Amino acid sequence: MKKEIIRLLEKKNDFISGEEISNHLGVSRAAIWKHIKSLKEEGYEIESFSRKGYRLIRSPDLLTQNEISKYLDTSIIAREIIHFDTIASTNTKSKEIADKGAVEGSVIISEEQSGGRGRLGRQWTSPKHKGIWMSVILRPQVNPIEISIVTQVAAAAVVKAGRQMGYDFYVKWPNDIMMNDKKVCGILTEMSAELNHINYVVIGIGVNVNLGIVDFPDDLREKASSIKIESGIQVNRQELCAYILNHFERLYGSFVRDTKGFEAIDICREKSILIGKDVSVIRGNEVFDAFVLDLNPAGELVIRKKDGTEERLFSGEVSVRGMRGYAI
Amino acid sequence: MKKEIIRLLEKKNDFISGEEISNHLGVSRAAIWKHIKSLKEEGYEIESFSRKGYRLIRSPDLLTQNEISKYLDTSIIAREIIHFDTIASTNTKSKEIADKGAVEGSVIISEEQSGGRGRLGRQWTSPKHKGIWMSVILRPQVNPIEISIVTQVAAAAVVKAGRQMGYDFYVKWPNDIMMNDKKVCGILTEMSAELNHINYVVIGIGVNVNLGIVDFPDDLREKASSIKIESGIQVNRQELCAYILNHFERLYGSFVRDTKGFEAIDICREKSILIGKDVSVIRGNEVFDAFVLDLNPAGELVIRKKDGTEERLFSGEVSVRGMRGYAI
Repeated sequence: MKKEIIRLLEKKNDFISGEEISNHLGVSRAAIWKHIKSLKEEGYEIESFSRKGYRLIRSPDLLTQNEISKYLDTSIIAREIIHFDTIASTNTKSKEIADKGAVEGSVIISEEQSGGRGRLGRQWTSPKHKGIWMSVILRPQVNPIEISIVTQVAAAAVVKAGRQMGYDFYVKWPNDIMMNDKKVCGILTEMSAELNHINYVVIGIGVNVNLGIVDFPDDLREKASSIKIESGIQVNRQELCAYILNHFERLYGSFVRDTKGFEAIDICREKSILIGKDVSVIRGNEVFDAFVLDLNPAGELVIRKKDGTEERLFSGEVSVRGMRGYAI
Repeated sequence: MKKEIIRLLEKKNDFISGEEISNHLGVSRAAIWKHIKSLKEEGYEIESFSRKGYRLIRSPDLLTQNEISKYLDTSIIAREIIHFDTIASTNTKSKEIADKGAVEGSVIISEEQSGGRGRLGRQWTSPKHKGIWMSVILRPQVNPIEISIVTQVAAAAVVKAGRQMGYDFYVKWPNDIMMNDKKVCGILTEMSAELNHINYVVIGIGVNVNLGIVDFPDDLREKASSIKIESGIQVNRQELCAYILNHFERLYGSFVRDTKGFEAIDICREKSILIGKDVSVIRGNEVFDAFVLDLNPAGELVIRKKDGTEERLFSGEVSVRGMRGYAI
């Protein structure tokens, strides 16, 4: 109902009487008043004068269903959006509700994460209203070993959403999105599985949208950045968030249909910052140098080692050697 | 403290005065009386006469830490045992407590499961006091794709424990233990993981120990059985349970040290009922005939298809064709 009221106010773009809203939506004027009150609490600036009615001054910059649904064009992904003001971690919350049976496509978004996580439990800075901190719950009927492709699907969705808004994103396999060789987005894929059956997958997507330099810890400023810092422009979070989900639905649908995810892989290959580079690979306790040849259709990185042998990396840590003298 | 009292009563094998117990353990006679009361509630039959003291008549047939620890010889596995009278599923409970940080080696045992699960959510009959329904929480620092070997490690542990007690178990890859071509034990491996990092693995081991034919649903009697039905002898559950955990610790330790699990794989190969057989393979929506060549060191089943090509199965459903006319 609140979404309908917002739509009416947006459409009118002037005062609209309580009676008109009431007639339009078939609920009492008292109910309308209550909804308006609740919308104000959510951050909507709404003027109200007796005899003139209500007028929307400004919608809040929030990633609520009300706000992002105007840009959304999906049927499975984001059919359920659970929005938080602050939460420890959207991935942790998603696993909790996935364990209890949340439907495929459920999206958990928080304006802020107090304990945001990157891979291997690393900290992920997630300040309020400055990024997109969200997780998508999936239940693909594929083998757990194919799940690394879903990370590539998410990476490709972010690249396509960026392109739609005029930003040129690159992919650092397997799970980082880069602008000017700095990380502006990370993807954290977690799953609960049996040997040959996935219970659920949670794809965490953290986008540094409008963070300033001061929002990053000192030791990250050389490696991480935000779209705003790199482009110089304040970015519409709602639009970007919805576009990512739109592209994700298309690319994920194609992955589930043929379990190959070719389009996603093609995008990640085209925008790879690793292919053709000398890199250091960290795998378990092993560190070795290699040259990156390709990203294969299974989403594996194909490398050539110093002894000339080729190998496929399923996942792992790869740093570009020589790039600004540090690992990215 | 209760464990110490039980040990004293067992050792004495006659009446022992409250004063003697009290002196021995350094606690008050009132405390002893309370512990005895609690032990009786757990099922211990203990006689008590004034001036004579306490005498243990019979210990209960329960899989409590008190009872199985006398057969246990482990340091990591089962250092923590959580025992339930009845529970929905030991795997589900294990995932719950693993999410909250339970230590590696924690074992959850229940005398009965009201919602016991097999693979793919299938029902697993788990009547009270008649089987071993337990789960082990592990945190191996290996790649998620190597986790299928842990199922083989558990299967090998059950085979070795059976051998120790005089039973000849066979392995139906990837996760069933057979006697006379009937399933007497199933292993359910579940994990929570990132792409290249395991949060935890839960290994559910369900052993049909002393079930009678009437304990099985009609449609399972041709495929499933119990050790008691197949051997004709009532089996000591406590001993078998502890032996499985003892062997599991040795085999798992060797897997974690070299991430190969060679001994476990060798046992599963030696006792395989599939190698050398014509089988039907179900993989996703695909069904095809094949001949089983080997179990390789990665725990994959190596098969030869009708067209002569060889393939490795990571996991899946395999039925022996022609065996009693049905799939096992």
